[in-house]
Amino acid sequence: MTDQTIKADWIAVDWGTTHMRAWAMSASGSVLAEAVSDQGMGKLTRDGFEPALLDAVAPWLDGPTPIIACGMVGSRQGWVEAPYAAVPCPALPGGFVRAPTQNPDLQVHVIGGIKQTDPADVMRGEETQIAGFLARNKNWDGVICLPGTHTKWVHVSADEVVSFQTFMTGELFDTIATHTVLRHSIPAEGWDSAAFATGLSDAMARPERIAARLFSLRAEALLQDLSGPAARARLSGLLIGAELAAAKPYWLGQQIAVIGAGALSRLYVDALATQAAPATQVKGDAITLAGLTAAFRLLKG
Amino acid sequence: MTDQTIKADWIAVDWGTTHMRAWAMSASGSVLAEAVSDQGMGKLTRDGFEPALLDAVAPWLDGPTPIIACGMVGSRQGWVEAPYAAVPCPALPGGFVRAPTQNPDLQVHVIGGIKQTDPADVMRGEETQIAGFLARNKNWDGVICLPGTHTKWVHVSADEVVSFQTFMTGELFDTIATHTVLRHSIPAEGWDSAAFATGLSDAMARPERIAARLFSLRAEALLQDLSGPAARARLSGLLIGAELAAAKPYWLGQQIAVIGAGALSRLYVDALATQAAPATQVKGDAITLAGLTAAFRLLKG
Repeated sequence: MTDQTIKADWIAVDWGTTHMRAWAMSASGSVLAEAVSDQGMGKLTRDGFEPALLDAVAPWLDGPTPIIACGMVGSRQGWVEAPYAAVPCPALPGGFVRAPTQNPDLQVHVIGGIKQTDPADVMRGEETQIAGFLARNKNWDGVICLPGTHTKWVHVSADEVVSFQTFMTGELFDTIATHTVLRHSIPAEGWDSAAFATGLSDAMARPERIAARLFSLRAEALLQDLSGPAARARLSGLLIGAELAAAKPYWLGQQIAVIGAGALSRLYVDALATQAAPATQVKGDAITLAGLTAAFRLLKG
Repeated sequence: MTDQTIKADWIAVDWGTTHMRAWAMSASGSVLAEAVSDQGMGKLTRDGFEPALLDAVAPWLDGPTPIIACGMVGSRQGWVEAPYAAVPCPALPGGFVRAPTQNPDLQVHVIGGIKQTDPADVMRGEETQIAGFLARNKNWDGVICLPGTHTKWVHVSADEVVSFQTFMTGELFDTIATHTVLRHSIPAEGWDSAAFATGLSDAMARPERIAARLFSLRAEALLQDLSGPAARARLSGLLIGAELAAAKPYWLGQQIAVIGAGALSRLYVDALATQAAPATQVKGDAITLAGLTAAFRLLKG
């Protein structure tokens, strides 16, 4: 079977800043085909979204087809702005927004994000992963951690998002390692587990001293031949430790799920384990698709 | 009187990463002339230093002339590496290093930096400012704060540098404001004193939560129309507050001098005042020159 013979009953789309991923779905929720594109939201002007989507999904169309999309495609800089719902609310509170299309076969429904007033916070894309996780784990109460450029900690109870907090830990790591004086001491690759553990425990034990610890990486590289992999891993440990210290009101004494298959999510699981806070690691891609499927079912009512 | 008629008894040079500044000095320590160049250490390869210096000081030369230089010119990437002395030590422990020159009139002596083993730390350039401050304030004991890209807190007692700690606060501010998602919310200019005070007091009261507060600037800009100047000032308040919290073992109960004439130093003085820690603000340029003069006298024995 080739793509030319696949006709989708509906199409699921995860459209982020850097990439777009689409799945041709059957009515029963099976994946018939999959496409990945580098035409992320960040590269597109408003009228570029429809052609980019058609490039990926045209072979699957056979008449008007519902398309469910999540992620930055719904931001103010995206295809169409899909408003934020305010917590407390279900991960998918409904209120999908139709994106305008020339091609009548494209019936694009964009999922809105979630906002919180105090402290101010927003998510867009993660709500679909949370919905997917909850669809697979009925009646689950606890805290979901979604590591990434902007890591989210989300308190979920009674099938609602109660509160959440975003940490810029991933972006800070990249920025500090690339754009500050530490770039001379931190290589693009390399790891040292003991150095990660040292940074983590330092930052968790005395989080108020985080600002004092960064320059030591440069000084130790100059004076004590601190290795690049050790500097890189310790910076990561310091930043994740500071995050875990600040996020303690979220995870302490809670059931915890960490969403994401990669090494970063594994670091969070291991770090939480050192705090006697066992967490379950959940694969991210399948969860996103489960969330898009939940959204499709909600739409079809 | 023009530069052509000025002959220096000696020349003082402050040679940093981005700029070089030179003063033609009389034997008695008066400034006869001054030159500024954008040929900082960061732009020069090793054989570029002598021509860059000559461009600035050649008119002042009349036979072999002692030249005292401080700053990154003495780093491993500089003209000649001038080793670090270990604390506790005088701000100017001696051990100047001669830079190699083709022109025999240039007798260049480079001032070494200061290092600390635990926690690892280094300074290069600030030791000369500290020496200048101590030359003007005999028998001064207390803590000197030198705000900048890498702010230093230095404990001075009995005319020695006892310990010090570097904070990357200035560089973190620039990097976060320029290279992260906060760049969409933080303009290059603009200020809001109340927002600075809010960030400062938040970070000082709960420094362990610093990692949780950054993304709020983005979310408040999206949800609550937080102004650019307010976002910029609050980021500064958060970072300086986190620094003051971590540096508290330095400044608490101490006599404090903040070196630097600019608005940044004023922020530190005002921030310390909110903690009932009065600090004296001292002009930086004059202090550097006083330190280079002290170094010249030390060299001449």
